[in-house]
Formats: sequence, C-alpha cells, structure tokens
Amino acid sequence: MFDTAIIGSGVAGLSAALTLKALRRDIIWFGRRDLSEKIARAEKIRNYPGLAQISGADMQKAFLDQMEREGLAVTEKQVTGVYHLGTHFGVLCGQETFEARTVILTTGVEAVKPLPGELEFIGRGVSYCATCDGFLYKDKTIAVLCTVKGLEHEVEYLASLAKKVYLCARYPDPAISLPNVETVTGRPLAVEGGVRAERMVFDDRTVGVDGVFMLKAAVTPAVLVPGLESEGGHIAVDRQMRTNLPGCFAAGDCTGRPYQYAKAAGEGNVAAHAANAFLAENKRESL
Amino acid sequence: MFDTAIIGSGVAGLSAALTLKALRRDIIWFGRRDLSEKIARAEKIRNYPGLAQISGADMQKAFLDQMEREGLAVTEKQVTGVYHLGTHFGVLCGQETFEARTVILTTGVEAVKPLPGELEFIGRGVSYCATCDGFLYKDKTIAVLCTVKGLEHEVEYLASLAKKVYLCARYPDPAISLPNVETVTGRPLAVEGGVRAERMVFDDRTVGVDGVFMLKAAVTPAVLVPGLESEGGHIAVDRQMRTNLPGCFAAGDCTGRPYQYAKAAGEGNVAAHAANAFLAENKRESL
Repeated sequence: MFDTAIIGSGVAGLSAALTLKALRRDIIWFGRRDLSEKIARAEKIRNYPGLAQISGADMQKAFLDQMEREGLAVTEKQVTGVYHLGTHFGVLCGQETFEARTVILTTGVEAVKPLPGELEFIGRGVSYCATCDGFLYKDKTIAVLCTVKGLEHEVEYLASLAKKVYLCARYPDPAISLPNVETVTGRPLAVEGGVRAERMVFDDRTVGVDGVFMLKAAVTPAVLVPGLESEGGHIAVDRQMRTNLPGCFAAGDCTGRPYQYAKAAGEGNVAAHAANAFLAENKRESL
Repeated sequence: MFDTAIIGSGVAGLSAALTLKALRRDIIWFGRRDLSEKIARAEKIRNYPGLAQISGADMQKAFLDQMEREGLAVTEKQVTGVYHLGTHFGVLCGQETFEARTVILTTGVEAVKPLPGELEFIGRGVSYCATCDGFLYKDKTIAVLCTVKGLEHEVEYLASLAKKVYLCARYPDPAISLPNVETVTGRPLAVEGGVRAERMVFDDRTVGVDGVFMLKAAVTPAVLVPGLESEGGHIAVDRQMRTNLPGCFAAGDCTGRPYQYAKAAGEGNVAAHAANAFLAENKRESL
C-alpha cells in the first residue's frame, strides 16, 4: 500500500512528487518517462520564476535531471481507473491494481473534447487503453484516434493485433506506415452504434468498426475516477486542492485555467502538503 | 495610472510581475532590489520544480538574472497603505501616492505576531515605516523592533534623527553600533500607553518612549489595506486569488500555508491572470 499515487507526469505531478519525496512519503507516480509531450514541445516559456526564457526542451531536461538527483522515477503504466474503496484507493492499470491511501490527479487537460457517443460507448467498444483492451480486438476492425505522437507505439501494438486499423492522427507528421493501417484524414465527428459501438463517423466518410480506441495524453477525469465532481469541464477543488472524494486531490491544468507551468507547480505542491496532512490525520485516527 | 501595483518582492510577486509583463501590462512593483531576505537565507530547496537542490542564494541569483532579461525592476519604496478608491487604488509610500487599477498583494508572512497594543497604537506612536514617520521623532526617544537584517539602514536613519533609540533586533548578528542606540536583549511583550504609546514592555525591562517603530519584512495586510478580509491571520482569497475588494488580489505566503516557493509562484501566476481578466472586463464596461 502506497501513501500516495500521483497520476500524471506534467509539472503538477512533478511538483507533488518532489514535495512528497521531501516529506519522506512512499509514492507511486504514473506517467511517461519523458514526462509530458506538451512541455517538450513548448517553444519558449517567459514567466516561470527561476528559469529565464527557457525552451520546452530545456525545461524538460531540467526536470529530468532534477528527478534523477532526487531519485524519482515514473511508473510507465496507463491508469485506466481510480476507485475509492472507503479507506483507500485502487488504481487500475489494465489488469494490474495498485493500492494507495491517497491519490493526486495531475492528468492535464485534453484539448479535444469527448465526441458525441464517446462516453456512451465506454466499455462497449470505446477504449482509452491499447494495452488493456487491445487483445479484445484480435483480427477485428478498429478505428484509432491518436492525439499525441508519443502514443504511436500503442497504435503499432493495436495494428499487430487487429485485422484492420483506421487511423486518425490528430498531431503533425504521423509516422506510421503498416499494410493494415489506413490513414483517415477527415475530422472525427461521432461514435455511433447500437448495444455496442459499430461506426466511426468522420466528416468525409463513415467506417464500420468493432471498436474505437481514443489514445489521448489525458483521459477525462470523470471517466477515470467514478464519483469525482467536475465544474465546467474541470475537476472541482478547494484551496487545498481537495476534490469531493476524501483523500483524492487534484492539481494542474485538470483543475482549470490558467493553463500555466507556475500554477501547476504551485498546485502540485499544495496538493502534496494536503495529502501529507490527510495521511497524518488518518494515521492518528486508526491508532 | 498603472494597470497593476504588485506589493512585495518574494517569489509570488516575481511570478505575478513576469506574467503581467508577458501580458504587456503596465505595472509598478514595490519591494526590495535584492527581492527577499527569506529567499537569500534559505539553505537548500529540494522541491521547486526545475531548480534542483538549489541554495537560497543561487535561487535569488536566478531570479535577479531573469528580471534583468525581462527588463523588470523593483521600485524600492515602503508601501504604507493601500486604499480602495472605487474605480482604482491609491498606493501610499510615505508622502508619495501611486495609482493603479488593480493591486496584487504578495506581502509574505511575518513570523512575529502583532504585540498586545501594537495595532491599537498605529498612528498614535506605532509606525511601520522609518522613512515616512521618522521625522516626527526628531530628538525624541523611540523603541525600534527590527525583524530583518536588511532593514538595519532604516534603524540607522532613525538613530540619525532620534535622541535615543532602544533597539530590539529579532535576527542573528545585529551590526549596529551607534552612541545613541541601546540594544535591548529582552523579548518584546507589549506596547502600552494612554492616548498615545508611552511605554515599550520587554520581559526584562520597560522603557519610556515617544514612539515605537516596527520594522518588519511584511506588514500585517489588514493594517496595510483597510477593509481587507482576513481568515485565521491570512488574507482570505478564492481560487482565482481574489480578495473581498474588487480588483485587489493576493498571492503567496500572505494567503496561507504551505509557505512554499512553488505555491507562491503558482499563486502569483494565477493572481496576474485574474488581474489581467479584471482589467479587460473593466475596460469593456467603461467603453
């Protein structure tokens, strides 16, 4: 049982991890080894205190160096669900479960809004995780919407299983060329079907499918954490970054604007302190 | 008329200044040229994202370099009052007044709580500003409580005016040696008097005085800004760092715990964005 599971490896996640490490808490931190595609692609950041006119690539390098010096490592697993189990949380990564007393959500925001039908068909043909659900589509036909280049390896994995993949890449310069992958250039409009998803609708065509994979940098938090309260598309939090679920905190872009590195760093710090206080409080109660 | 007056030059103030500069707002930023004694004295900071295991001195250097690159300068004046004048704010620095449409308070926290009698005798013998009120005590006897070494020049200035100064230095290694300055080693307990302050009480002695100067790194915000709402000794703010006064925002330690650099940076950023939105909103209304 971990003290805290941090979900997301942007600046908010890093800030929370650094602070909980300094507070000697036992954490598991889910994300990407290279932290965040968004950071790496940023052109020039002019208002992050202490890093003058830094490029996204250099900021990423500074963060990775810092993690190494502090002995922090990211667990590269895709979190597919977070369940509040009363006294603690179950964090699902496909078939694996991890347990933690507290959770800090730093999942970022996805610029792409859910499509009509997307949320409706979750678990009935719509999936966010290639490694969790890919095997269900062996020799079948699927559509894959991929919003970040860093997830191309998941597209390749899906193509190794499925008979046919319709790939809609929502980022510049997709670099996948496989015989069973057909690139769709149209804009995705909706997922349609009956009991299960059956069709993926683009603005230039509609394709029949057995399933749709939405490979995004950030999963909609309400999808990830059942029972979590939202407010205008963001996770609702108070000044201590507490969500409506006791022991569950959130920080960074997922809690709302401004979408800024300094704000994310600050909120990650506050969430870590709040989680630490929550852990201390619960310890006392269980004695 | 400035768009925004930022009051305080810790990390929150810097973060707000950087962001408003990036947003091309016309700001005035009150503080110290060396930013913050607290930062410079910090031993080692291990949880500020992007600056790995940095000393306070190196962090200060990074901040000063960044300010130079962004063309940001601190106005070295002691703010003695902030007055909400309906459509804008008047910022008083002794005899001078500056006007700004919005204010961001980043005044930090003072570890030392107000003494009994301190708030009661403000303007009747208790002052927070040597340059503003020092001339009132020419050839008189005063007590000076100084909590930071960086304000020793103000003590010297007061000693050049007053006949006699009882100096209570609340920091390590005070370095003032003047014939009319007597160092008091006792702990300050209270300010006493009748219509005006008449006595400064220490735990080992009581001295008769004409006035008491409290030279602190941070002035109690409620003293600085009449009408400002507090909560448990901190400025009450919402998630957008708005105070109860329209157009007045606050960020950093003055809004509450945790007293952390990352939190201050984040709140300064959010306050700057909120001030920017407020300015845009008011602009629209006045058209």
